[in-house]
Amino acid sequence: MASELALSEHLKANFSLNGLPAQVFKPFWRDLAEFNQYFRQLMTSNVKIVDRVARYLVKHRGKQFRPALLLLSARSCGKLRRESFITAVVVELLHTATLVHDDVVDDAELRRGFPTIHKIWKNKIAVLMGDYLLSKSLILATEVGSLEVMNLIATVAKRLIKGELFQLQKSRNLNITEAEYFQLIGDKTASLISACCELGALTAEAPEEHRRALRDYGEHLGLAFQIKDDMLDYEGSRFVLGKPTGLDIKEKKITLPLIYAFQSASEGERKYILKLIRKGADRKKIREVIDFVRDHQGLEKARQKAFEIKDTAINRLALLPDSEARNALMDLADFVVHRTR
Amino acid sequence: MASELALSEHLKANFSLNGLPAQVFKPFWRDLAEFNQYFRQLMTSNVKIVDRVARYLVKHRGKQFRPALLLLSARSCGKLRRESFITAVVVELLHTATLVHDDVVDDAELRRGFPTIHKIWKNKIAVLMGDYLLSKSLILATEVGSLEVMNLIATVAKRLIKGELFQLQKSRNLNITEAEYFQLIGDKTASLISACCELGALTAEAPEEHRRALRDYGEHLGLAFQIKDDMLDYEGSRFVLGKPTGLDIKEKKITLPLIYAFQSASEGERKYILKLIRKGADRKKIREVIDFVRDHQGLEKARQKAFEIKDTAINRLALLPDSEARNALMDLADFVVHRTR
Repeated sequence: MASELALSEHLKANFSLNGLPAQVFKPFWRDLAEFNQYFRQLMTSNVKIVDRVARYLVKHRGKQFRPALLLLSARSCGKLRRESFITAVVVELLHTATLVHDDVVDDAELRRGFPTIHKIWKNKIAVLMGDYLLSKSLILATEVGSLEVMNLIATVAKRLIKGELFQLQKSRNLNITEAEYFQLIGDKTASLISACCELGALTAEAPEEHRRALRDYGEHLGLAFQIKDDMLDYEGSRFVLGKPTGLDIKEKKITLPLIYAFQSASEGERKYILKLIRKGADRKKIREVIDFVRDHQGLEKARQKAFEIKDTAINRLALLPDSEARNALMDLADFVVHRTR
Repeated sequence: MASELALSEHLKANFSLNGLPAQVFKPFWRDLAEFNQYFRQLMTSNVKIVDRVARYLVKHRGKQFRPALLLLSARSCGKLRRESFITAVVVELLHTATLVHDDVVDDAELRRGFPTIHKIWKNKIAVLMGDYLLSKSLILATEVGSLEVMNLIATVAKRLIKGELFQLQKSRNLNITEAEYFQLIGDKTASLISACCELGALTAEAPEEHRRALRDYGEHLGLAFQIKDDMLDYEGSRFVLGKPTGLDIKEKKITLPLIYAFQSASEGERKYILKLIRKGADRKKIREVIDFVRDHQGLEKARQKAFEIKDTAINRLALLPDSEARNALMDLADFVVHRTR
């Protein structure tokens, strides 16, 4: 007993929420600490180069939002079982794999303020390391011993990649409709977030209707999350965000605020703005696009949409029994659309 | 009946063994034609860019040795079931995915005489397309409905990637022992070939001892296959091979014939040859390395080793009931070490 208490104190002292909203996740810090131990143990290898890159990835890991969401979803359906922890590692490995490849594809210099894998170790290693993490994730997934879990993971992997490919295709002609935007963020963001919630339910052996409720909650949470992310690129403060605004404009990504602004602009204005973006906008022109979006209610309409979707997410949870975890999930949906970074 | 016969004639007329040894596979042409129909159906997509690349890959596909081996293994255990065909597509998708990524990693210009994906569509598309094929392969694997199949596929994927990473690490210092060579070709080549044989048995619901026999056969077949491949780079004819010899030397890959030649050379000779390779050998120096290997019995010793391993492969099959398919597998092992390209 004494040593368990000591361990607990030790974990607590050494654990940080690392960017996760404290008001939501603090009561569950112990789950997250346990997950982190599993994750660190698995991010080692006896192939030297793999081990070195894996350690770098652990050191500069993100807030691990997806596994945290999976564990919270599982808690909302009952007790945490070993299967939920394994699956949480599976999704974090999968997410990490896609980020490593995305950075190659976008030739990104930095991730979370640190040099990307392909910038340090070159493309070769980054491509293979992404593949390695993906296959590691899948082997681990088979350990859960459920074909449903496997199929969910494989399907979400395909959706993530399909989204990336679609975005690459779209970034060339700048011609994206509202429906296509929703399909894109559904594939690129909501798919994995939704899968995390569903996997939480699945590994907690929840009844079918709870599982469906959590899947729908996750899909809407993911959409709201991405819309807010895209809004912050227009309305955020670079000092709070820790990165400049207007990055999407610079990278020729057309997101919801701009799509909505076009709806109340003339065809001439639309063409003018697209020309600015196509030519590769400098700071002054980015400012012009941001002002255009604000003046044409693009941000206001996007905010309304994000709030509607967030409300749908919360409503889906009404079906679940009242619990600290269920209420935390509700708070999380609110947090997602109110955050400033 | 009449239409089935017509279909059969149609298939036969339009089917080619496409590089597979006719003496082994001709009796099984119908299985291969059926596999090919499945494969083509699956290599389509409603994302335009994916579809275009997929069609290119189908058009310039290889001899599809791995799925052919899987089907032959399944036949040697009994009847072909739907699960065997699906799994054959799974392994071909997996193999194709790794080739697309390997070509990015090695920056290869050509594959089977045609430009590689990343040379036509750039690295971005090639990385994502590899990911896409991999995830497609896994989704399909879950359709077989067997966790054992899933685990085998995921494990082999990890071994393939581990092999690539190890090779990348080794190509820098040129220091590879015989044991490391066998570990490397075990991971890079024998793992998937062995998995194909085992998956054939598994999907044919063969008893455990037959499954083990086919797995061992495949592992040894794969090793013999790769040793012969590495020998052909020294002893082959460029007119028969369709590509120049000495490519491994040029790419600084140390293979078994050279490792064996070093064993009967002086330390001074070894250092001299390694210096030639390290500096990036031209045609004349490649000739010098090839002559060194021949003069020091490197090829002769490698041939002995390949034949020993081939015999082990064949012996493992003694356990299986006598059948046309079992005997074809035996012939295949002989073919592999006798081929001239």
